[in-house]
Amino acid sequence: MKGEVSGRTVSESRTELTQVMLPEDTNSVGNVHGGTLMKLADNAAFVAASRHSRSNVVTVSVDRLDFLAPVYMGDLVTLKARLNWVGNASMEIGIQIDAEDLFSGRVRHVATALFTFVALDPGGRPRKVPRLIVETEEDRMLFEEAAVRAEERKKLRKKQ
Amino acid sequence: MKGEVSGRTVSESRTELTQVMLPEDTNSVGNVHGGTLMKLADNAAFVAASRHSRSNVVTVSVDRLDFLAPVYMGDLVTLKARLNWVGNASMEIGIQIDAEDLFSGRVRHVATALFTFVALDPGGRPRKVPRLIVETEEDRMLFEEAAVRAEERKKLRKKQ
Amino acid sequence: MKGEVSGRTVSESRTELTQVMLPEDTNSVGNVHGGTLMKLADNAAFVAASRHSRSNVVTVSVDRLDFLAPVYMGDLVTLKARLNWVGNASMEIGIQIDAEDLFSGRVRHVATALFTFVALDPGGRPRKVPRLIVETEEDRMLFEEAAVRAEERKKLRKKQ
Amino acid sequence: MKGEVSGRTVSESRTELTQVMLPEDTNSVGNVHGGTLMKLADNAAFVAASRHSRSNVVTVSVDRLDFLAPVYMGDLVTLKARLNWVGNASMEIGIQIDAEDLFSGRVRHVATALFTFVALDPGGRPRKVPRLIVETEEDRMLFEEAAVRAEERKKLRKKQ
Amino acid sequence: MKGEVSGRTVSESRTELTQVMLPEDTNSVGNVHGGTLMKLADNAAFVAASRHSRSNVVTVSVDRLDFLAPVYMGDLVTLKARLNWVGNASMEIGIQIDAEDLFSGRVRHVATALFTFVALDPGGRPRKVPRLIVETEEDRMLFEEAAVRAEERKKLRKKQ
Amino acid sequence: MKGEVSGRTVSESRTELTQVMLPEDTNSVGNVHGGTLMKLADNAAFVAASRHSRSNVVTVSVDRLDFLAPVYMGDLVTLKARLNWVGNASMEIGIQIDAEDLFSGRVRHVATALFTFVALDPGGRPRKVPRLIVETEEDRMLFEEAAVRAEERKKLRKKQ
Repeated sequence: MKGEVSGRTVSESRTELTQVMLPEDTNSVGNVHGGTLMKLADNAAFVAASRHSRSNVVTVSVDRLDFLAPVYMGDLVTLKARLNWVGNASMEIGIQIDAEDLFSGRVRHVATALFTFVALDPGGRPRKVPRLIVETEEDRMLFEEAAVRAEERKKLRKKQ
Repeated sequence: MKGEVSGRTVSESRTELTQVMLPEDTNSVGNVHGGTLMKLADNAAFVAASRHSRSNVVTVSVDRLDFLAPVYMGDLVTLKARLNWVGNASMEIGIQIDAEDLFSGRVRHVATALFTFVALDPGGRPRKVPRLIVETEEDRMLFEEAAVRAEERKKLRKKQ
Repeated sequence: MKGEVSGRTVSESRTELTQVMLPEDTNSVGNVHGGTLMKLADNAAFVAASRHSRSNVVTVSVDRLDFLAPVYMGDLVTLKARLNWVGNASMEIGIQIDAEDLFSGRVRHVATALFTFVALDPGGRPRKVPRLIVETEEDRMLFEEAAVRAEERKKLRKKQ
Repeated sequence: MKGEVSGRTVSESRTELTQVMLPEDTNSVGNVHGGTLMKLADNAAFVAASRHSRSNVVTVSVDRLDFLAPVYMGDLVTLKARLNWVGNASMEIGIQIDAEDLFSGRVRHVATALFTFVALDPGGRPRKVPRLIVETEEDRMLFEEAAVRAEERKKLRKKQ
Repeated sequence: MKGEVSGRTVSESRTELTQVMLPEDTNSVGNVHGGTLMKLADNAAFVAASRHSRSNVVTVSVDRLDFLAPVYMGDLVTLKARLNWVGNASMEIGIQIDAEDLFSGRVRHVATALFTFVALDPGGRPRKVPRLIVETEEDRMLFEEAAVRAEERKKLRKKQ
Repeated sequence: MKGEVSGRTVSESRTELTQVMLPEDTNSVGNVHGGTLMKLADNAAFVAASRHSRSNVVTVSVDRLDFLAPVYMGDLVTLKARLNWVGNASMEIGIQIDAEDLFSGRVRHVATALFTFVALDPGGRPRKVPRLIVETEEDRMLFEEAAVRAEERKKLRKKQ
């Protein structure tokens, strides 16, 4: 790909997915299935990583996913994904999940997640992604924290 | 419900649903199923109508839905819904559907739709909804055009 | 395709789809999702248009879809589709949706729809379809009404 | 239920379900999943048994299901179900499955099945169903053959 | 395929599928859909037949499927499949379905099934499968009973 | 519940879920969707936690989920879940995911995960679960490692 960019800002790949929770999204108790939210979080991270790298990307790991409150059928779920950090071929994506009760309009923060994705070339090998241009103080802080986590993951992988 | 509002602005109920198209969303030729986009448009209109009326709402009619371009698996589909007009219990919602190719970042306008919803009280009877507060010139124009369509639908229903 | 027919009667493409409504077809309130019925109506129109043209076909527009009564889980839904009108490459299909309560046997007329489809050649370009042979007085009336609507749609498209 | 009928003809409960095969109906090789056809056959038998008994019904057994030819994505599948025989609370339903290639219009007979259902009262106990009124020579033959099978199944169950 | 084995024991292809029953698996009354269990039984038989033949396989028939007790949403369903008998290209697979109530730990035997599968070569023609090596007395008994059934099916097919 | 047990061994709640990957489980590139495996892992952890506590349980967090190799349509996926550690109301579950290619019989280790679940009483409040009886050296090691992680999670939560 010629004319490929060397860097992209955090805001260029910011992603927001929004979806109504239907019966097919519930578990056997009638609430929204934790697995449904995981799948949606994976989709949101997938879009953000695709937008930053404009290449094929795959999930490497869920580094953390915390459920803070239950989600109910009929709720409107919004997933906000943003790139925290970028390595050579890998990207850390942070996701915040909110749920809105459509009757009252009340929005609850229901989950938070960290995913790592890697960009692949057409042959399925890791490919270099544009560097992440941080613009705000928050961007910078999240980048540094994520760099520490990336370092720890690298060590962990060597031990295995 | 006490303290119910008498009017809400167009922007208070503006809705944006966004979802990645997966294999389960395709038709037998491999493109995204027209029926999938109809269902998503119905969901978007449902959310906008719920946000304006903060009550139970049901689809009364699809007044128009035009497909302008095909949508492919892997595309990111965004549906923007807004209230055009509000009668006693019924609301006209306009929807624009866009699709983003995640590899190139190119966004195409793929469909446009007009839906009518009605608000229901707990007994299932039509209930009065807050009036629609128009703020911009575009709001005003869309309201007037929709009022004409509502009038035509009323005449049509009498003839039947 | 050699030996291609120059015309087909309305009855040659008449279509009837019938399906039981299951939990996966419901919305968050427990009734059948309006979007489910739209998808089924699109399928019914797809079959009728395929049978008339015996070629690949795609949805161009939902010209009207009116919901007259709610549909419940467990109901048997029947969609009757028929060609109303045929232009060069485009076809208008009329659909009637009924729902049968399997406990009482009572059948309700629950929705009516008008769709426009277009036939495509293998390269994805509009292709001429056989003309529609009208046989009954009803066929003739529906054809004339649909021709008026087609004319209006053409004007509308030019204005855009 | 007062005024309950003492008998119903075969034709009163005849059922025809028809559905387009979509990607969600396929197996890992790309043809329609045998399990999808089984589920559809169960639905068809369910509707026929419900229409004869106008009560809650459940599947007791699949007595036979023979696949004669593969079904492909995009095919229109039609299931014709009819009551063959009725005992006290149980009913034998025969099903024929056809598939139409929508491009050529060619219809293949793809499967045949025999199901046994039982009618239940609100407490979940078997309840007497109306007797089956046979009208044609075919009705009579199928009834007699099914009565033999029912007898065999009864013996088999005793042995277990 | 060189080095192909001439025989495989029953235990080499024994299969166990286990899955939690979710809302998408239920029927309109709220229990697990008989069709869902049929589809799962077909999958279990598919895996056992694949493991024995290590080739493409398709369902030829459901020879018997008996439902013994209802299955509820939230239950853990286990399907145990084993080869009973092997002919030239065809295999009979026996399946036992159990359901565990996760609150009490109580396991019920809910269904039993017999399927016939056939192995196919890449051209879609029946292909010879390894012979079935019986090891236990139970293996031997099941093989003999299944051989009788296979003989009966062959006769039946000739009559048709 | 009277006669409630005070402790359960690791092996009493060991869980194995096994499922064939179908088209509905794939992503837009045709491989099995990462989100599908997350949902299955959540189900496996749910079953193990239910079996240990015999009460209602919910996902608190995905502490780690590492994808090691892609999974393909048609693969047989097996998830082995076991309790690593138990606190007052919370349980750490370790999951190993394997995929078997049914043509070759080759099994690959494709993912590993750690989940935390909490047991709830009928009122939705955390409830005490039986203690975890460790029996082997591996049980003991995993328990100690998980206890460290639990301590870290507690600290983390306080900081937030």
